[in-house]
Amino acid sequence: MTASVLNQRVVLAKRPGAAATIDDFRIESVPVPALNDGEVLLRTIWLSLDPYMRGRMSDAPSYAAPVAIGEVMIGGTVSRIESSRHPGFGAGELVLGMGGWQEYAVGDGSGLVKLPAAMPRPSYALGVLGMPGFTAYMGLTDIGKPKAGETVVVAAATGAVGSVVGQIAKIRGCRVVGIAGGAQKCAWAVEELEFDACIDHRLAELPALLAAACPAGVDVYFENVGGKVFQAVLPLLNTHARVPVCGLIAHYQAGAAASIDLSPALMRSILVKRLTLRGFIIFDDYGMEFPQFRDQMSKWLQAGLIKYREDVVEGLSEAPRAFLGLLEGRNFGKLVVKVGA
Amino acid sequence: MTASVLNQRVVLAKRPGAAATIDDFRIESVPVPALNDGEVLLRTIWLSLDPYMRGRMSDAPSYAAPVAIGEVMIGGTVSRIESSRHPGFGAGELVLGMGGWQEYAVGDGSGLVKLPAAMPRPSYALGVLGMPGFTAYMGLTDIGKPKAGETVVVAAATGAVGSVVGQIAKIRGCRVVGIAGGAQKCAWAVEELEFDACIDHRLAELPALLAAACPAGVDVYFENVGGKVFQAVLPLLNTHARVPVCGLIAHYQAGAAASIDLSPALMRSILVKRLTLRGFIIFDDYGMEFPQFRDQMSKWLQAGLIKYREDVVEGLSEAPRAFLGLLEGRNFGKLVVKVGA
Repeated sequence: MTASVLNQRVVLAKRPGAAATIDDFRIESVPVPALNDGEVLLRTIWLSLDPYMRGRMSDAPSYAAPVAIGEVMIGGTVSRIESSRHPGFGAGELVLGMGGWQEYAVGDGSGLVKLPAAMPRPSYALGVLGMPGFTAYMGLTDIGKPKAGETVVVAAATGAVGSVVGQIAKIRGCRVVGIAGGAQKCAWAVEELEFDACIDHRLAELPALLAAACPAGVDVYFENVGGKVFQAVLPLLNTHARVPVCGLIAHYQAGAAASIDLSPALMRSILVKRLTLRGFIIFDDYGMEFPQFRDQMSKWLQAGLIKYREDVVEGLSEAPRAFLGLLEGRNFGKLVVKVGA
Repeated sequence: MTASVLNQRVVLAKRPGAAATIDDFRIESVPVPALNDGEVLLRTIWLSLDPYMRGRMSDAPSYAAPVAIGEVMIGGTVSRIESSRHPGFGAGELVLGMGGWQEYAVGDGSGLVKLPAAMPRPSYALGVLGMPGFTAYMGLTDIGKPKAGETVVVAAATGAVGSVVGQIAKIRGCRVVGIAGGAQKCAWAVEELEFDACIDHRLAELPALLAAACPAGVDVYFENVGGKVFQAVLPLLNTHARVPVCGLIAHYQAGAAASIDLSPALMRSILVKRLTLRGFIIFDDYGMEFPQFRDQMSKWLQAGLIKYREDVVEGLSEAPRAFLGLLEGRNFGKLVVKVGA
């Protein structure tokens, strides 16, 4: 590895306005630096694109520091060790880490998790066996606490988190109603994931269709969307319903706000229906539970009880466009970028 | 007891508009009916006035059926058995029940709880030793889960629920910041209840004053008010803060709504700060815990660890005016009506 090798990377060019646009990103190439003792050079194979990244583009107060202007966009990656001056890592090893939106990353080994060299689908470590699957698992089981026979509603039902939420709820014996964007996704949720119903949120009749699909009301609403979907679910929530809140993608690209304040109605629902709403940030709140999750999910995958769909984008330079599409629901399945071979 | 004895009672004359008014009530006198076998005649001594009654005046869907038009207003009462044709009750006994806003009530004995005949302050059964005190106790301990050193904020700080919430939090070793209407109430909360601070919500500087009083943020917010108080607390909530929701008195007399939707900001806070919001209806959700609460609270009262203030209104005919004052925060302490001797 010499200084003549270039690292293509995507940096944050500026803070987005209300909605992020392609101009907020800049693609640049810089030389790959030489390694110091204790460092490893990672070659990115898979980059995960996830909604939380939108939050890191803004400097609004949040649970994590924003990406600085000019800095490489944050992102989970599966990488191969290209070269190593670290005693704990050898060239050729496969690792999970936060390499970011770039072809190469230099690290000191911290935060890297070795993956089995012969892992059949390494990208799964970014999805169903990684952060999104873990989010689905803990949010549903620890906060949602679904009981057999209850009705679970999940939005973004064909996405990385929602598809897993719904399938675990089916394993638990629940009635599962998905919400997704478009007839094709809805059909897949019902036919492949075996949800009991799936409603297209683009239809103006969403509230009525959802009510019809939930004749016994809603006991668990896994909130990863917000906005009009949440407003459609809220009147259907049963007494003592649980609402794990893991994301609000409909709010991230803030459009026109409603002209009346819906928060009093929300608070009234919490009181009158004795709801529990709880937010969580998966690794901060549940980091210790990860091994248990991974074992369970691996078994479910092997048994065919959990199905998983990826939306694969080829080439790092496509990442900004794909990410903006994710915020608009244009992906179909877990969005990953194939960066390297 | 003959039919010539009249029962003065307050009935719901009509459903309120946005705000309840005196015209929504009607005072009337009707003959006290003769008792059938198995019935008791109750003479109301104390009537409790509580914010939840506002909800029962409206027919909006809620956790309990509304009072019908022309029906006696619902209300907790301490009564003496005037006469009895029920084997379980004898004349002269003191009972807690839901006698409503009237001088006399006929019942079949169901829902009546006998009180010690020599109870020094029977009205306490409607307050610190009854529903409001129990609400404070369970909401704070079971949902709020305050730890020593944490900061607890409670609104309506001199009211029946808030005053008890704050004092229990002090017993638990917390920093307690009250919010109340007016300098007099705030002074009482600090001097008598020994809260660490109390902020007057009528001051335009409420958000800044509250922030200054909570230098380490807020770990538990006991929500019984809503509106601008909640909006002032929300930015101060710490990661993993807990918000028991037992009432929203600021919303009950709905005034002009905010012209922007604050619910997305609320949901974002729930997510980013990993808040828990949980509503509860005290006897529905915690009925089995009542004896344990009563024993504990009795001990605290005897030990002088919990102080308690009543705002006594004389005469049933004053109940409507006093109730409307309660909705505007004009009471100072637990509001009770002395109906009979």
